[in-house]
Amino acid sequence: MGVLIVGSTALDSIKIPKAENPRLLGGSASHAAVAASFFGPVELVGVVGDDFPRRYVALYRRHGIDLEGLQILPGKTFHWSGEYEINMNNRRTLLTELGVFETFTPTLPEAYRNSPFVLLANIAPALQLHVLNQMQRPRFVVADTMDLWLNIALPDLLKLLGRIDGFVLNDSEAQQLTKEDNVFAAIRKIHRLGPKYVIVKKGSHGSILSGPRGFFLCPAYPLAKVVDPTGAGDSFVGGMMGYLSTAKGSIDGNLRRAMVFGSVVASFCCEGFGLTRTTRVNRRQIDRRVKELEKLTRF
Amino acid sequence: MGVLIVGSTALDSIKIPKAENPRLLGGSASHAAVAASFFGPVELVGVVGDDFPRRYVALYRRHGIDLEGLQILPGKTFHWSGEYEINMNNRRTLLTELGVFETFTPTLPEAYRNSPFVLLANIAPALQLHVLNQMQRPRFVVADTMDLWLNIALPDLLKLLGRIDGFVLNDSEAQQLTKEDNVFAAIRKIHRLGPKYVIVKKGSHGSILSGPRGFFLCPAYPLAKVVDPTGAGDSFVGGMMGYLSTAKGSIDGNLRRAMVFGSVVASFCCEGFGLTRTTRVNRRQIDRRVKELEKLTRF
Repeated sequence: MGVLIVGSTALDSIKIPKAENPRLLGGSASHAAVAASFFGPVELVGVVGDDFPRRYVALYRRHGIDLEGLQILPGKTFHWSGEYEINMNNRRTLLTELGVFETFTPTLPEAYRNSPFVLLANIAPALQLHVLNQMQRPRFVVADTMDLWLNIALPDLLKLLGRIDGFVLNDSEAQQLTKEDNVFAAIRKIHRLGPKYVIVKKGSHGSILSGPRGFFLCPAYPLAKVVDPTGAGDSFVGGMMGYLSTAKGSIDGNLRRAMVFGSVVASFCCEGFGLTRTTRVNRRQIDRRVKELEKLTRF
Repeated sequence: MGVLIVGSTALDSIKIPKAENPRLLGGSASHAAVAASFFGPVELVGVVGDDFPRRYVALYRRHGIDLEGLQILPGKTFHWSGEYEINMNNRRTLLTELGVFETFTPTLPEAYRNSPFVLLANIAPALQLHVLNQMQRPRFVVADTMDLWLNIALPDLLKLLGRIDGFVLNDSEAQQLTKEDNVFAAIRKIHRLGPKYVIVKKGSHGSILSGPRGFFLCPAYPLAKVVDPTGAGDSFVGGMMGYLSTAKGSIDGNLRRAMVFGSVVASFCCEGFGLTRTTRVNRRQIDRRVKELEKLTRF
């Protein structure tokens, strides 16, 4: 029970001008699962190779993440390697080795099929659909995506959009999907594709929720230094779904606050490479930043 | 008394793919003065030529703007002409005729020198300093600027920064001035140049205040269609200063709300060419959008 999260589980090698960070724990499901774990139980669905470091399995366990859905297959773990430029703004992919991820079929353990909250973190939309097909009437299903799937798997993505409650994407993806420059015009078009809730991420500018209660302008926590934004979007949706899964009351009544909690976990993510900062955070530190954001936005 | 506003008073010709909008009332002082006029008395300091249409003088008057400081000189009014591309995102300058603006020296009428609130809207920093030199202990002085002055009049601008309370600029200008990509790091550096209050405008992403009470993340009103953003930044500071000049209590206690009022006036500005939409707005419509922004940001 709690949140079921499916997505990529990967090793990320992130180079910056002064340091290498080889084989950090990464992937959309890793970031989202750790973020959600601060709030309640998490079930992780993913795949890794037999080279997957034991310390990362221990890390998931330390965060109370259920691993019955994590397949460990003979072969190599998905490995992504990238390099940042000096100003940290541009990232360049050096290498992508899919490994066992190439043939991944996310088959859910029986115990996961009743989970009320489902996060289809960034992964091929066909796999997101495959997970959804195994679920028994979840209460709230949210999907994240990336530009790659808009380019190479749009028909699957459109099929998915008809079957989920909430869709999360960033502003440039919203623009790409709808051909609308204006984000609010883009949101209107995305609703017509199915989702009742549309959430557009704008990086350091925060995010926008559009739902039955109208818009919510969700702030980003102010950071004077961003070390590595990799996984921030995944942390945001993970934290949001984690908070939602344990909050009492209606989705509508809790979603704004859930987004702010997600935004705060994402801010911690940005303060270290990979998951190095997020994994050293506790719930009290998260609550403190949420309180700060209340003060930073009140007028 | 009220707000003294100095800046450019111009005629703007704005072409879009389907229409021409010749010789609209424009300029930083025009936008700021009309925006401020919704809240309290405004004194306008500027210069126009003898070709300046009477209907624009009437427009200022209708908004209760004091024109003792508006010089009408033999010659042509400052004329700017520009063209938008189809997606409305890129603007190209076609023509800039300075006219009487070229030799403008803003000499203040005696009655203006005691104004408690001074807005040095976008104009050459030397002229902003010249106005400041004629003032007798104003309570709160705010200056706006643009990238042009960072490029050609930086020493004057730096001199100005040591003498004002608040400095308003947009995010790309903050980056250019400080060589800092991160807006919060840039703000820290700008404080060191003098201003107690730094306000960074981020267009549709809202704005950031940094002052003695810390940061405030000010929202932008959601617009699904932007007709013409020209003058939005001027409307923002104008509305902010207008609100501040009539609000009871401390600057610190009122500034956040003042920014939100400015942000709302700017949103109306974006909904029409030049001042065409702003001049049809009333205080009740402004108050309504401020209430909406309260709801849009609460969590």
